[in-house]
Amino acid sequence: MRGFDQLRLDRTQRRTLQQQLTDQLKAMIQEGRLRPSEKLPSTRALAEELNLSRNTITAAFERLHDEGYLQGCERSAFVVGTVTRAFRPGERQRPALAVKSAPPRQLMGPRPFRPAQPDVNLFPMKLWNRHRMRVLRRGNELLQYQSRFSMGLDELRQAVGAYLRDSRGIRCHWEEIAVTGGSQQGLYMLGQLLLGPERSAYMEDPGYPGARRCWEQAKAPIVPVPVDDGGICLPLPDAQDASLLYVTPSHQFPLGARMSLGRRLELLRIAQQRGLWIVEDDYDSEFRFDSVPQPSLQSLDEFRRVIYVGSFSKTLFPGLRLGYVVLPPELVEPFARLKATLEDHGPLVDQATLAAFLESGAFDSHLRRCRRVYRERQQLFLELVAQKGLPLVFPITGHGMNLAGHFSIEVEDTRQSAALAEAGIDTPALSSYCNKASRSGLLFGLTGFADGEIRTGVEAMSTTLVKSLGI
Amino acid sequence: MRGFDQLRLDRTQRRTLQQQLTDQLKAMIQEGRLRPSEKLPSTRALAEELNLSRNTITAAFERLHDEGYLQGCERSAFVVGTVTRAFRPGERQRPALAVKSAPPRQLMGPRPFRPAQPDVNLFPMKLWNRHRMRVLRRGNELLQYQSRFSMGLDELRQAVGAYLRDSRGIRCHWEEIAVTGGSQQGLYMLGQLLLGPERSAYMEDPGYPGARRCWEQAKAPIVPVPVDDGGICLPLPDAQDASLLYVTPSHQFPLGARMSLGRRLELLRIAQQRGLWIVEDDYDSEFRFDSVPQPSLQSLDEFRRVIYVGSFSKTLFPGLRLGYVVLPPELVEPFARLKATLEDHGPLVDQATLAAFLESGAFDSHLRRCRRVYRERQQLFLELVAQKGLPLVFPITGHGMNLAGHFSIEVEDTRQSAALAEAGIDTPALSSYCNKASRSGLLFGLTGFADGEIRTGVEAMSTTLVKSLGI
Repeated sequence: MRGFDQLRLDRTQRRTLQQQLTDQLKAMIQEGRLRPSEKLPSTRALAEELNLSRNTITAAFERLHDEGYLQGCERSAFVVGTVTRAFRPGERQRPALAVKSAPPRQLMGPRPFRPAQPDVNLFPMKLWNRHRMRVLRRGNELLQYQSRFSMGLDELRQAVGAYLRDSRGIRCHWEEIAVTGGSQQGLYMLGQLLLGPERSAYMEDPGYPGARRCWEQAKAPIVPVPVDDGGICLPLPDAQDASLLYVTPSHQFPLGARMSLGRRLELLRIAQQRGLWIVEDDYDSEFRFDSVPQPSLQSLDEFRRVIYVGSFSKTLFPGLRLGYVVLPPELVEPFARLKATLEDHGPLVDQATLAAFLESGAFDSHLRRCRRVYRERQQLFLELVAQKGLPLVFPITGHGMNLAGHFSIEVEDTRQSAALAEAGIDTPALSSYCNKASRSGLLFGLTGFADGEIRTGVEAMSTTLVKSLGI
Repeated sequence: MRGFDQLRLDRTQRRTLQQQLTDQLKAMIQEGRLRPSEKLPSTRALAEELNLSRNTITAAFERLHDEGYLQGCERSAFVVGTVTRAFRPGERQRPALAVKSAPPRQLMGPRPFRPAQPDVNLFPMKLWNRHRMRVLRRGNELLQYQSRFSMGLDELRQAVGAYLRDSRGIRCHWEEIAVTGGSQQGLYMLGQLLLGPERSAYMEDPGYPGARRCWEQAKAPIVPVPVDDGGICLPLPDAQDASLLYVTPSHQFPLGARMSLGRRLELLRIAQQRGLWIVEDDYDSEFRFDSVPQPSLQSLDEFRRVIYVGSFSKTLFPGLRLGYVVLPPELVEPFARLKATLEDHGPLVDQATLAAFLESGAFDSHLRRCRRVYRERQQLFLELVAQKGLPLVFPITGHGMNLAGHFSIEVEDTRQSAALAEAGIDTPALSSYCNKASRSGLLFGLTGFADGEIRTGVEAMSTTLVKSLGI
């Protein structure tokens, strides 16, 4: 058995003997040590030679056959296939590659005080898995193509509709709800549908960069609109070709203002008058601690100019990647067509599990628990920071995952943010969210971190800022 | 306790008493039967009145508080919140809606002989779930935002790279692999990156409609290219502004041709010469039954003009919605930027589970099993059809999920397809995939159906065709 004594199988390796055998035979074929049409020994003979079971040899041969390295011939013997030069390395030169293979990167959790991080340790994964198993036992339809459901499973669209009606006063038919791959995909699609080089977008300034990227992707000019304590400032700046206005009325990103009812109604009037679409991103409206919420814009809108966007990334967990868009009737069809082309349906088992999770009340319980924990974390943080006497003020509290801290002295916030990052603290500079506006401060996310992390985080932040500010 | 005797709780209902109580209190507030600032009875008093546990009452009150229907006041009593008009139905008129709420649609499995349906009953879901649980036990990082991984988890990109290298001779660095929401999302993104109104796309004619939709979405003119038994016909028709060519060389969709090695090399030469990108959709190359595969275009390509697209929808299950794109080095950065805007990372638990499934060898075993079963189904179908003596010929067999059957007599295939659909048989007309080309026949998918379904399907088809063709 010419050549086969080169095989070296090592029982101490992590890889199975079958994998080792397969790889080594493949290498022999690729390097020409076994030639096309050469007959392989019988499985029995090779098993004896290598002191392996025949099953192992047979499995390796079958795999090589499947992959085209071997061909079958009479009486189930195998010969080496007519392997093409594609499989032979070293035979020809490729141009140098721009990218070099790097080792895989470690997954890491967020460092304090990265904004918008839910605490995934609170998530009831066991309960979620029980719903998932129940959903899988219903039958195999969820595993199959379901192109009729590229806007999401009907059961999920209905459950989301009921939740939004009860919690935010949203009124729509469930067919107007699209399930998306996070709210990011929803925003991207809206940019593609509604914007272009001659259809510009109003954006809060400072505002959410994830949305800005979507409008820029659609090549739309961006018209910044100042914000104050009542949210986006009206009247809007002139922009003849504006076709969309993006707004975060529950909790302005990043400053935190809640838009007043008066301004909400005025904004709706303007939108109707000018034919503007309003994209209402209600990104962390679920986390209200102290106050009765203002009604959503969508619930106040008589004329269906509001597109309501939300996500389960922050209420459940970001790795799930499910969000939703509530569409005005005339946008349902165009959105559905784009969704069918962009991806067809998303992952269906997750969608069905989420529907069951919502319907069972488990979602509400989880949200209540998160709200309690997050409220306490925000209070703890504010107490600790107050004790430190840092030149940071927090004018808007009592709501949401993030707090904007404004410097009460003249400071270049990007520099402080960089110094803090070196000390292991992630707090983006408020100016980094600004277009024309000028704000100096830091954005703190408090929800993703346990009390101990908040304590050590505030310590580290205080030490760094005292040193860096020379106070 | 004015009004509270209106509450009607029914212990025989599917909804819990707490849910019923919450809903009815909400309705009382919405309809004004409970007025803003009105004080609610104590939980103790209401529990006695309704003969419920205090816990139930407390839970209902807390939920209503969370949703803003109630406000807390002194000594943990509740008053009705200052509910805004948004929550009150019937107070104002909305314009009529274009969409009416319909009952949810049933999920259904495919009918014979719908093309491109894997048999999800073969999928080892228990084994998959074991890998999933192991992955979840590693820690909670998979649940968190991981925006550095918007091109997919590194471990999955590496596992896909190893699989493609071994099975299809693909050579790339793992950083050149993008994980996408099915191959459909990959094709959509390529259209957005590489096409436009003045950058047209060559398409096989007949060809794959899912790809065509993506090019049309990018507003690109489509230049149809005829196909014959050797795949796409060369030289290509003139098209000055063509920037992309889409091709299915392993198993031309829908006719089934395998592109000859000579033509592959010629196509690569043309692409290099003209600066064309080749999109190689290797959509069911995993299911070769009889023959050694031709090398993939990507493996033959000296100049990195080939973009290799594939999916796990057909090898695992479509509901998973994971695919991949192997990019030339210069497209990696633009693709990554678009992916970050379009959706950020996809579902991470599924990605990590798939990586483990690939690395463990479970994927290879599953594929081998499917290949055996699918080969037998194709043989069975061909035997049964031959026995019927129908005017259908199948010139290309031995590969893939689908078989193109050509009518050997003059027939309007769309009419036969419609007649078959009425009889419960889904076989699209070949002409429905054509642009300029003219083909008359039917496309049969055989992989998604057990032997019994194939038998009854062929019976039903034969009966219908005999009647409809008058033979």
